[in-house]
Amino acid sequence: MYVDQASTEQLRAWESELSAEYQAHQARKLQLDLTRGKPSAEQLSLSNALDGCLNGNYIAPDGTDTRNYGGLDGLPELKRLAAEILGVEADEVVVGGNSSLTLMYQAAAFGWMFGPNGAGSEWSKEEKVTFICPVPGYDRHFALTQELGIDMVTVPMLDDGPDMDAVEALIERDPTVRGLWCVPKYSNPTGCVYSDATVERIARLGQKAHPAFRVFWDNAYAVHDLNPHAPRLAPIAAYCRQYGTEDSVYQFTSTSKITFAGAGVSFLATSPQNLAEFKKHLAFATIGPDKVNQLRHLRLIPDMEALRNLMAQHASLLQPRFEAVLSVLEEGLRDSDLGSWLAPQGGYFVSFDTRPGLAREVVRLAGEAGAKLTPAGATFPYGKGPQDTNIRLAPSCPTVAELNQAMAIFVTCVKLASVRQRLA
Amino acid sequence: MYVDQASTEQLRAWESELSAEYQAHQARKLQLDLTRGKPSAEQLSLSNALDGCLNGNYIAPDGTDTRNYGGLDGLPELKRLAAEILGVEADEVVVGGNSSLTLMYQAAAFGWMFGPNGAGSEWSKEEKVTFICPVPGYDRHFALTQELGIDMVTVPMLDDGPDMDAVEALIERDPTVRGLWCVPKYSNPTGCVYSDATVERIARLGQKAHPAFRVFWDNAYAVHDLNPHAPRLAPIAAYCRQYGTEDSVYQFTSTSKITFAGAGVSFLATSPQNLAEFKKHLAFATIGPDKVNQLRHLRLIPDMEALRNLMAQHASLLQPRFEAVLSVLEEGLRDSDLGSWLAPQGGYFVSFDTRPGLAREVVRLAGEAGAKLTPAGATFPYGKGPQDTNIRLAPSCPTVAELNQAMAIFVTCVKLASVRQRLA
Repeated sequence: MYVDQASTEQLRAWESELSAEYQAHQARKLQLDLTRGKPSAEQLSLSNALDGCLNGNYIAPDGTDTRNYGGLDGLPELKRLAAEILGVEADEVVVGGNSSLTLMYQAAAFGWMFGPNGAGSEWSKEEKVTFICPVPGYDRHFALTQELGIDMVTVPMLDDGPDMDAVEALIERDPTVRGLWCVPKYSNPTGCVYSDATVERIARLGQKAHPAFRVFWDNAYAVHDLNPHAPRLAPIAAYCRQYGTEDSVYQFTSTSKITFAGAGVSFLATSPQNLAEFKKHLAFATIGPDKVNQLRHLRLIPDMEALRNLMAQHASLLQPRFEAVLSVLEEGLRDSDLGSWLAPQGGYFVSFDTRPGLAREVVRLAGEAGAKLTPAGATFPYGKGPQDTNIRLAPSCPTVAELNQAMAIFVTCVKLASVRQRLA
Repeated sequence: MYVDQASTEQLRAWESELSAEYQAHQARKLQLDLTRGKPSAEQLSLSNALDGCLNGNYIAPDGTDTRNYGGLDGLPELKRLAAEILGVEADEVVVGGNSSLTLMYQAAAFGWMFGPNGAGSEWSKEEKVTFICPVPGYDRHFALTQELGIDMVTVPMLDDGPDMDAVEALIERDPTVRGLWCVPKYSNPTGCVYSDATVERIARLGQKAHPAFRVFWDNAYAVHDLNPHAPRLAPIAAYCRQYGTEDSVYQFTSTSKITFAGAGVSFLATSPQNLAEFKKHLAFATIGPDKVNQLRHLRLIPDMEALRNLMAQHASLLQPRFEAVLSVLEEGLRDSDLGSWLAPQGGYFVSFDTRPGLAREVVRLAGEAGAKLTPAGATFPYGKGPQDTNIRLAPSCPTVAELNQAMAIFVTCVKLASVRQRLA
């Protein structure tokens, strides 16, 4: 279906056909939900052994009684595991609580209140502070940036990461730039993996950027591959060492999509100097992380092999779901001018771009036919996609049967909205 | 031993006797630690059933899958329990993570950055912000206040709570006052319980104070009685309702000294308006609390009766330890002018006041004889006790035998330092 080349007559015929199809969907009164990038109950059950895995032994390998106070930065053995995941040294890691978003918020809030380099570098004391946001991106990154009163400027997300020409130009041109948001592997929502060249260019930004500039490297999907041949992300820390820019990057990851989404452990990795600065402020904000839950994670996932085995089980649950979404899109929209999407090799999303000006309408139509989608625009700062094209599809939670139903509705809505737009 | 009335000759004789006694202590090369108000391993073991108590059932009574994302403010059933402890309604409670200090920090940091009443009430936009700190008090309260750039002014802690004449005078006189720190039951470190009249007067402060003034009511020892006849704390929320000052108080408590010190759950209770404001900002800072650990707590402590039973077991472990500390003090210093202390009915501390100018010296002497004590001055803002008198003794962790040894050293050091001061 190519609406650009279609005659008005043809468009009218399609409109009538698709309206009937749409009404048929509506008549089934389905209640499907593709909004949230959260694990399914089946995935969560893979880690059900977490509760009880201590068998009454609450003592960590280094002798720490995990039940008591103490230990601001987490169990050393768990740092080691995180270090392997992120390609850093164990002493460059802080283990946090159940939310890496909290570590990101703290890094940003401490930068705002106290300065990433300590007194004199407080972002709050500057007239204006700007973060660069590749779009489409993750709504919670944008929301916390806005909450702290930080301005956002967008750059396009390409197939191999942010448009680095645009990022470098902003760093050169705009003296207020203090941050860059990145989800470098299986970017939320496009699913792209940053190329080695992009990772290297991001590591070099610290050479030209303001000393209080920081990359927020949210590696949420570091080990979340859908297949064994998935692409590898270059470790940014190695490039940073090469260019002497170790202080310019905060790396984050968590087990939220490895064990329990709401009850995992989170990690921050950065240079020893950044870490010292971060811990200095963290010490006032907590009595320390939940070390008992850290020990549970260490018992369930003692090493990288155990981690890989667990992630393979996740993949076996996720892969058919992604397959369902992609095959319905492929079948319904392959030969068309109605939209574009990527087939991600991992992560939690499929990102779909409609013809300009149609994302909101497609989400509305799908919602009213029983398939709830993430609000269009959510993937842009301030919730506003300038072109109104991007829709984030989250296949992890529904069953394959539900996904087939939801995506059939979706394809009908994309076609119907596109045809109606041409007719208007 | 009354040093004020003693002759120089007598003082010299004592000095020589006590020096020999002190050297005998030193010769034993003990390593005792009374610094930290943390539970002993025996106390922690009372809750060892926590890990594993879910038996694979992660679903909360209201149907929530606690493993997944969602639920910013915690499980409703746990709110109900906290509401009973604090004398509020369940919908006035937020359940947090493992650290009530984090909730306090967040309440203060949100007040600083965004204002306790929202835009226009930001503390950061005022020339100066002052918190009233009853002294001696809790070092971590003072540290976090200082961290946020808030000034501190002290008022004396009396046997029935803060000197309310002084507090009310400050509120009348100083327009920069925005906060008051309180540990209303078994105050850290004096162990006093605020009288009903004091609680009522604190609840009334909101009538005269600035609209952005808040009482930080850290009820850390709400159910931590050493005996069944322990005093009862008046519920401040009831007085606040009476005086229409519901927005002036944030109440905090946690299970840190009920279950696991480092892996419990924390609670904030306040007015619906404050709670809405708090949650608005909390939403950017976390994906939500660890609901799995909340459910564990609900299973272990389903109701007030279970809580009371658990606390009675704690008391049976703590009571002999307090007894040991108090009886050595009593025996060694009863008939003397060398110091004063209270016998608390609960909490975690015994607070001792030396003769003026001796606390630091006693802590030094005791440390060098093998009994490590909390640094003198820690119980005052900026770590400085103006009189250098207060020493906080924490009896919970050592065994009774260790406490007897440590307190014998302590008594020798108090005597020796006092005699030497008179001789100097």
